[in-house]
Amino acid sequence: MKNLITKSDVKYIQSLAHKKFREEEGVFVIEGVKMVGELIDEFPDSIVHLYATQNWVDENRQQELASIPLSIIDEIILSKISQLKSPNQVLAVVKMPIQPSHEKTSSEIILVLDQIQDPGNLGTIIRTCDWFGIQNIICSLDTVDAYNYKTVQSAKGSLLRINIQYVDLKVYLSSKKGVPVYAAALEGTSIHKIDVQPPAILVIGNEANGISTDVMAFATQKVTIPKFGRAESLNAGIATAIILSNLIK
Amino acid sequence: MKNLITKSDVKYIQSLAHKKFREEEGVFVIEGVKMVGELIDEFPDSIVHLYATQNWVDENRQQELASIPLSIIDEIILSKISQLKSPNQVLAVVKMPIQPSHEKTSSEIILVLDQIQDPGNLGTIIRTCDWFGIQNIICSLDTVDAYNYKTVQSAKGSLLRINIQYVDLKVYLSSKKGVPVYAAALEGTSIHKIDVQPPAILVIGNEANGISTDVMAFATQKVTIPKFGRAESLNAGIATAIILSNLIK
Repeated sequence: MKNLITKSDVKYIQSLAHKKFREEEGVFVIEGVKMVGELIDEFPDSIVHLYATQNWVDENRQQELASIPLSIIDEIILSKISQLKSPNQVLAVVKMPIQPSHEKTSSEIILVLDQIQDPGNLGTIIRTCDWFGIQNIICSLDTVDAYNYKTVQSAKGSLLRINIQYVDLKVYLSSKKGVPVYAAALEGTSIHKIDVQPPAILVIGNEANGISTDVMAFATQKVTIPKFGRAESLNAGIATAIILSNLIK
Repeated sequence: MKNLITKSDVKYIQSLAHKKFREEEGVFVIEGVKMVGELIDEFPDSIVHLYATQNWVDENRQQELASIPLSIIDEIILSKISQLKSPNQVLAVVKMPIQPSHEKTSSEIILVLDQIQDPGNLGTIIRTCDWFGIQNIICSLDTVDAYNYKTVQSAKGSLLRINIQYVDLKVYLSSKKGVPVYAAALEGTSIHKIDVQPPAILVIGNEANGISTDVMAFATQKVTIPKFGRAESLNAGIATAIILSNLIK
């Protein structure tokens, strides 16, 4: 099904750069040949509409595309609706996954993010979780939005495979009595000296200020990555990855 | 020493956004209250000139500043000379460190980067090296420039503490006969099953294509981060950090 794109379509897609409109509409944008290709392979039903150059359409699997609403656009329109510096042939408007109100499983490691602010960090963390088989990320209400385009780009294809919830962390952690809570901190037990048995919760804090006092109150153990050099701290995404690689092996 | 800023100063600083001019002049730019503060503490002699708001000057250590060339600027000029979206009071033009033609020590782990393209990734890698006490990073000639503003920002204060060289990797690795070369790859020995004794070299490859064939030819062992989920790959900075945390503990 091929359509023409209208001025109001362009405005609509541009509006999805804002969290408010994404949430009202329940959709977000995924861009580029590689990520949209993965999307068609894995989650075709989540695609609301594709906007693509004729070139892209010619090179893609006509059969699979037949059931997806599609508008052919030129490079000028693409650059108008894209958030990327170098738009790449295709853009998809995608339904946000319906997140269950609880975790997918309760016998694993759950990652809790307290006020992560950088969208690129959040995307990298989502991708890293998908590598290590972490299925659930629980974000504080003031963590950056997972559907903003920078997060989408750095999460690569992992965004739709991970269950991401935004909740009041105090309420959430209160409901998890009995589950050990490991909190990443600059001082604590070395990650090489802990033995974590799932279910367990790992908390990672804000890039500049770490974990807030209210949330830290739930920690059963502070854990730290031993330092051998002089850097003051590690990037939040890097710290998450190093700790996960130690918990899951 | 306080000066007025001229139009040609503004042009000069703007020109330093380009690698060509940075290299011709042997200087680069460090921005923001925190990073310039660290710079004054640790490497005052590397500062060629400071450009700061009156506010910043009033709040800073007059004694230490006395010996550094300084121009007072307003927010409008600051936004003209800054590469940041939200310029932060002060900008320093800094001498590039003089890199020795060989490593600082030869009995440690050396990180080799083959065609890293993302400046943020390179900055994060530099910061991570500084955490783990890695002193030397050897970059292929086509690795992104370490003095570009995005790398500077994500490296935080670590940029001047690490010895970074750009060399022909084939020539470099040929000169390292007898030193084991571990190459990060999607398939190889698990990082949890290797026992690395320095001196050793760790090679990390390009974000999309991994290590080039020419460089891979020098590998004595391929190493991999075990995968438990579905992500296709890990971000290059994340992979570097996870491997380093396993080599250095």
